[in-house]
Amino acid sequence: MAQAMPAERMLYFGDTAHMPYGDRSPELVRTYSVRIAEYLKAEGCKAVVIACNSASAAAKSAVVDALGADFPVIDVIQPVVRNLARRKVQRVGIMGTRATVGSGIYGDSLRAAQAESGQSGTSVEEWPTPLLAPLIEEGWHDHGLMDPVIRRYLGAAGWLRADGVDLDAIVLGCTHYPLALRAFRRVVGNEVELVDGPAIVASAVSEALSSQNMSSAAGDGSPNREFLVSDLTENFVKSAQRFFGEEIQLRPGGPWFNG
Amino acid sequence: MAQAMPAERMLYFGDTAHMPYGDRSPELVRTYSVRIAEYLKAEGCKAVVIACNSASAAAKSAVVDALGADFPVIDVIQPVVRNLARRKVQRVGIMGTRATVGSGIYGDSLRAAQAESGQSGTSVEEWPTPLLAPLIEEGWHDHGLMDPVIRRYLGAAGWLRADGVDLDAIVLGCTHYPLALRAFRRVVGNEVELVDGPAIVASAVSEALSSQNMSSAAGDGSPNREFLVSDLTENFVKSAQRFFGEEIQLRPGGPWFNG
Repeated sequence: MAQAMPAERMLYFGDTAHMPYGDRSPELVRTYSVRIAEYLKAEGCKAVVIACNSASAAAKSAVVDALGADFPVIDVIQPVVRNLARRKVQRVGIMGTRATVGSGIYGDSLRAAQAESGQSGTSVEEWPTPLLAPLIEEGWHDHGLMDPVIRRYLGAAGWLRADGVDLDAIVLGCTHYPLALRAFRRVVGNEVELVDGPAIVASAVSEALSSQNMSSAAGDGSPNREFLVSDLTENFVKSAQRFFGEEIQLRPGGPWFNG
Repeated sequence: MAQAMPAERMLYFGDTAHMPYGDRSPELVRTYSVRIAEYLKAEGCKAVVIACNSASAAAKSAVVDALGADFPVIDVIQPVVRNLARRKVQRVGIMGTRATVGSGIYGDSLRAAQAESGQSGTSVEEWPTPLLAPLIEEGWHDHGLMDPVIRRYLGAAGWLRADGVDLDAIVLGCTHYPLALRAFRRVVGNEVELVDGPAIVASAVSEALSSQNMSSAAGDGSPNREFLVSDLTENFVKSAQRFFGEEIQLRPGGPWFNG
């Protein structure tokens, strides 16, 4: 995201007091998400990215309602769905949290996108894989134990054949999963596309800003980013470093201050 | 607990909106725990059991302060520590969440208990094993994939020798872990004691009530239990069934109603 839009100032809020959203009810995820989005808008953000599949699934329309239809809100699911529909990928598997998969949003959105464009042909199956995020948070994203866990989920979903995975593409439908790309690749082999969600979403954000003439002029090249969390723990500092590939400064803040 | 005290009415509160406590900061766990304990006291409970190691580690004294020194508060750590000290178990390993192990409370409490009774000889080592609770919540408590995860943690803790585990006892320091007892037993063999925390804590509660003449007269044999949760999800209904070994009725309630 920062590489795609180096001139933009970014304010990240990580709701570490309430994570993982993937295990919560849709109602609660909506409550939290709307409160965070309102906070970010009040802080002066010109657009909000819901950078979590579970929150995108449960709360996108509630956030749009709360911030007003003119305010740019980009989620991490619709850009990927549009990308898949445009490319007419045939058989797609979605791996994600219980909340994301339980919502059925990938399948519903893809059917809606196809109906809108008069296309068809893409089929979507979704399977919940709730252990993958904890494994990645434990720093085991590239450890050999990831592989049997991924394989077990693929088998339970009915996607494993003797000669490989019976899908054309897999969406890593949780913002944690791309960190474990090498483990996914080891398990699924080279014939299955692992959809590059982060790149697709970054372009969607960039397009949304430029289509509304909101893009910032080129900056001085140094990233201007601020990171807030609702609960600051030593372990999350480590997790965040893994995600961003560098040391970042987290500080407690956001809409909740005292639990 | 219910078997040990069939005449007592029990009100359970599961803070499903904020779990897992094991990944939170001590400050936040204290905030949540005190609020829950005050709610339970206000609901008429005559004693409070902090049935979570992470909350016991971070919040016991704050809860005692909040409810008053005369109000019985039983946590799940001190009874186990007293049991180990009394039996003079030599080398003890503690497996628990990041929050529990990070607090160092098992070691500190054991040294305090030994100093008080003029004994010594028990040494404690603690190691965080944060993936075990998610694995158990996924229903994989007896699956073969538990074993290499447990083994990896034992190795990382430095407790594995060529001929077995170099400890006399292991405390399953998270209320989830006893559900995976068979997997632990497969990995550690029969020479290592797996400390029976739930039984020890149930006796401690029973003793605390009778020592204050608070025990209820024998009931009619049917359990009188009520289960509240701060966020109700289908998956937690399944988890709760696994824990209690029977279908239980959960309903939303407790000190938080709207996130």
